Amino acid sequence: MSLKAKIAAATTAATLAAGLAGPGTAQADVTLINAFEVPAGKQAEAIAAWEKARDFLANETGYVSTALHEAITPDARFALINVAQWESPEAFQAATRRMHAAGVFPSIDGLTYTPALYRVIRTDD
Amino acid sequence: MSLKAKIAAATTAATLAAGLAGPGTAQADVTLINAFEVPAGKQAEAIAAWEKARDFLANETGYVSTALHEAITPDARFALINVAQWESPEAFQAATRRMHAAGVFPSIDGLTYTPALYRVIRTDD
Repeated sequence: MSLKAKIAAATTAATLAAGLAGPGTAQADVTLINAFEVPAGKQAEAIAAWEKARDFLANETGYVSTALHEAITPDARFALINVAQWESPEAFQAATRRMHAAGVFPSIDGLTYTPALYRVIRTDD
Repeated sequence: MSLKAKIAAATTAATLAAGLAGPGTAQADVTLINAFEVPAGKQAEAIAAWEKARDFLANETGYVSTALHEAITPDARFALINVAQWESPEAFQAATRRMHAAGVFPSIDGLTYTPALYRVIRTDD
């Protein structure tokens, strides 16, 4: 293959990869998944606390989007699970540090949560 | 308001509601979230088992999509979390029953998982 053809092929490959990645899905993007165990009778309180955190974090650099999921059955171990997108692990960690320093998230007796960052490694393609 | 105007208004409202719901997001749609605790050294095995389950479930009635998330740090409590969309709780439950009856998902010593169905109740809108 000629040098010109190689450059064209490499450019096409890069463009295709970027296109497949799409906006907001760059390699650094991460998904926060936080599973909440909610004590009996505290669901509304937990949701309200989550809303306060969301309102703070949604203004932070690197925030992309969020969705709070509620279990459809009362016996689920995790009554609430948050799934959010951030532009990078560093952005998420900086934002969370600022949020905790600002004392935004109310403490709720017995509420436990397990936040961690993830990347999608398999779909149905 | 005249009868004709009332009918027009009701039609508009219904159309708008249907449009906002969008394809595949009807009220009955549910999100499966399944958090896996993976014993040390069994990550690849767990991913392979998940792929077998995915291949079975992706052919079942009511399946919409799936995404397996992998923690970006080794100390996360849940090394893998699956987030999948199904058209209804009944479709998911029927498909899972068939999968277990077919013996598709290999048992892995020490692997624990917590599947439950969810609906999104809050976003950043």
